[in-house]
Amino acid sequence: MSVIDELVANNATYQGPGPVPSRPARGLAIVTCMDARIDVLGMLGIEAGAAHVIRNAGGIVTDAEIRSLTISQRVLGTREVMIVHHTDCGMLGLAEDEFTSRLHAEVGIAPTWTVGAFADLDEDVRAGVALIRASPFVPYTDSVRGFVLDVESGRLREVC
Amino acid sequence: MSVIDELVANNATYQGPGPVPSRPARGLAIVTCMDARIDVLGMLGIEAGAAHVIRNAGGIVTDAEIRSLTISQRVLGTREVMIVHHTDCGMLGLAEDEFTSRLHAEVGIAPTWTVGAFADLDEDVRAGVALIRASPFVPYTDSVRGFVLDVESGRLREVC
Repeated sequence: MSVIDELVANNATYQGPGPVPSRPARGLAIVTCMDARIDVLGMLGIEAGAAHVIRNAGGIVTDAEIRSLTISQRVLGTREVMIVHHTDCGMLGLAEDEFTSRLHAEVGIAPTWTVGAFADLDEDVRAGVALIRASPFVPYTDSVRGFVLDVESGRLREVC
Repeated sequence: MSVIDELVANNATYQGPGPVPSRPARGLAIVTCMDARIDVLGMLGIEAGAAHVIRNAGGIVTDAEIRSLTISQRVLGTREVMIVHHTDCGMLGLAEDEFTSRLHAEVGIAPTWTVGAFADLDEDVRAGVALIRASPFVPYTDSVRGFVLDVESGRLREVC
């Protein structure tokens, strides 16, 4: 039995949220890392229906996240954005050039994307906030705030 | 008081997961939509620490998700992938050309990204699965499976 089969079996007893509107109730979008230890609803004390959640390796901001945030604000009415990086992140200190070269050598094709590693959590949070504020496509940028989560204690620290 | 201030206040009482390994315990990565109604841990009956979670508007698969999945498998050891789209998705039937034209007209700059709307949930799930299987960068593609979540009942339906 694969892991997916087990989780699909778990789903049989899950009670969905019922009829909840698609527009996020708290008018918020969160950009964070794919890290398995992050329980987004738990750490913010919110329920399903409250906020959009955008996640990728590192919680970085690229054109892909600007696309999601543009749709979040323009189609589904969100107005605030949180960026949340976290301690012990796999992208922190990953050797970008070495990883790319190894991948290129093994696969025979250079990746068309950049790895997006970073050397400093706070600095990359600030860069993400700045990228969102600078985007001409994201209309509401008065409340774009950046945090670092301690993945062990669950505590958020505001960066900017 | 902004919504973010409220959620940061909620965080003060959150108990983090404690010392949990960064490698996902179930060896799984999930690609799904940013939709506020999706409680990923709840719907699969898993705890923090189990799986990587990658989310964007629609739960589509592009180079950005291939980047995250490559890191998920090559750096953090995951082996299976679930793609989960959902009923009542904002990207389902969104008028891609009209949205792009309106954005271009309002902002004065054409977006450098495509909106990623789709006309059929099952078809886009199949396309996502196919894109992951075709990627030369994602090494483990034996267990890449696609689902549609009923966001009201919480029930998963396997597509492919």
